[in-house]
Amino acid sequence: MSAEEKSMSIIVTKGSLDWAYPPFILATTAAAMGVPVTMFFTFYGLPLLLKKLDLQLTAAGNPAMKMPMMGGHMGLPNLLTAIPGVDAACTKMMKNLMNKKGVASIEELRELAIEAEVRMIACQMTVDVFGFDNSDFIPEVTDYVGATSFLPVARKSDVCLFI
Amino acid sequence: MSAEEKSMSIIVTKGSLDWAYPPFILATTAAAMGVPVTMFFTFYGLPLLLKKLDLQLTAAGNPAMKMPMMGGHMGLPNLLTAIPGVDAACTKMMKNLMNKKGVASIEELRELAIEAEVRMIACQMTVDVFGFDNSDFIPEVTDYVGATSFLPVARKSDVCLFI
Amino acid sequence: MSAEEKSMSIIVTKGSLDWAYPPFILATTAAAMGVPVTMFFTFYGLPLLLKKLDLQLTAAGNPAMKMPMMGGHMGLPNLLTAIPGVDAACTKMMKNLMNKKGVASIEELRELAIEAEVRMIACQMTVDVFGFDNSDFIPEVTDYVGATSFLPVARKSDVCLFI
Repeated sequence: MSAEEKSMSIIVTKGSLDWAYPPFILATTAAAMGVPVTMFFTFYGLPLLLKKLDLQLTAAGNPAMKMPMMGGHMGLPNLLTAIPGVDAACTKMMKNLMNKKGVASIEELRELAIEAEVRMIACQMTVDVFGFDNSDFIPEVTDYVGATSFLPVARKSDVCLFI
Repeated sequence: MSAEEKSMSIIVTKGSLDWAYPPFILATTAAAMGVPVTMFFTFYGLPLLLKKLDLQLTAAGNPAMKMPMMGGHMGLPNLLTAIPGVDAACTKMMKNLMNKKGVASIEELRELAIEAEVRMIACQMTVDVFGFDNSDFIPEVTDYVGATSFLPVARKSDVCLFI
Repeated sequence: MSAEEKSMSIIVTKGSLDWAYPPFILATTAAAMGVPVTMFFTFYGLPLLLKKLDLQLTAAGNPAMKMPMMGGHMGLPNLLTAIPGVDAACTKMMKNLMNKKGVASIEELRELAIEAEVRMIACQMTVDVFGFDNSDFIPEVTDYVGATSFLPVARKSDVCLFI
C-alpha cells in the first residue's frame, strides 16, 4: 500500500486561532510527504475558508494556557479572561509568539495547503445553517457537499481525524 | 471491502448542545448509507444517553461563535457570556436556528439513530464515576462496557472518530 | 491481521485535568490488551509530559459539567465559574471524586503507560514555540520529533485518534 493509494482526511470543526493550527499543520505536512489530503470544513471550522480570516483566541476555559511564553507564565484567572480586551491581548500575544518563532500564520498555512493541492471541501449544511453565502469563501474551495459525500472519502483514508 | 464488512465507530465525549450534533449527524448519515455504526458514549458525552435530555450551549470560551446567524453577528464579549442568562439565551437561539433551518433536534437525531440500528454503547466507568444509575438512561442502550470491550470494535472500524 | 502487526496512535492535544484522562485511559487499556501504542504529545497536550504535573480543571464554558457528582448537581452558572478560586475548587472536587471512585490519577496513569511500554513522543515544534526545554520533561519521553516523523506512525496504525 503506497502513499498514493491511500489518503489522509481531516474533519475540521473548530475555528479559533489556536485550534486552526493543528489541522493546517497536519495537512500541509502530510501533503509535503506526498500523501493526498482532504479537509472537510464543517461546524465552527467552516469560517476558516472565509476570504477574510479574523481568528481570535480566547483564554477563558483553557486551563492548559499556562505556557512559559515570553519568559513568563500566562495562567490567567478566569475572571481576568472575562474582561473585554483580554482575548484581544491574548490573540495578539499568540500571533506575535508564532511569528517570533517562525511559525507560519493561518493565512500562510492555508495558502501552503492550496499550493500543495490539499482538497478543501466545505460543508453545505453548515453554510446554510449559519447563513453564509458560498461567495463568502475563497474560490479554492474544491466543493460544497454534505456528510454523505464526505464519508466515502473518510472511509477510504488510512487516517481520518476529527479536529 | 464492502460497507457491510467494515464499520464506523465514534467515541462521543462531549455533551453540550452544539457538540452533540457532529456525532449524531455523522452516525445517522453513515447508517443511512448502510455502514454499521457504533457510538461509544463516555466522559462528558455519556449524558446524551439520558432519558431526559437537557442540553445547553455556552458561549464562553468559544471564539468561533461569530456566525452571521439571524442576519447579525453573534460575537459576544466574554464578560457578557459570564452573565447568568446568556447561556440560556444562546441555547434558545441555537435551538430556534436549527429548527428554522430544518435541522433535526438532538432528540430527533437520537431517535433516528435508534431506528437506523446504530449501536449505542455506554461507558460503565463513566456511569460509576459520575454517580449515574443505569436506569437513568434510555432502554435502547445496547450495552454498558469499558474501554476494553470497545477497543476491538474501534480497531475493526475503517473510521474511528474521537469527538 | 494480529494485534502485534498494527498499533494504536493518539495525538494528545489537550492538557487540562479532565481531558488528560481519555488519552491515558485509552492508551493504558490498549497496551494492557497487547496493542502497541504511540502517544504524540503536541500543542496544549505537551505539558502532560512535564516532570511536575500541575493539572487544572476549568468549569467555564463546559455546559456538560452537570454531573450528579457527590450526590448533588454541579451546574455552575458561568459568572460563578469566573470567580477566582472556583477552578481550584472544581479541580480539587474532581481529584477527590476520581480518588473516591478508585480511578487512578493522571500521574499514576502516566506511570502505568510507561510500564506498559507505551511510546511517548513529544512534538519538538511545540517545545520550541512555547519555550520549553527538553530537560523539563520526564526522561521516559521516547523521542522529540515533528509531525513529519509522527505521520508515518499514524498511517500504519489501525486506530489513530486526535484527542
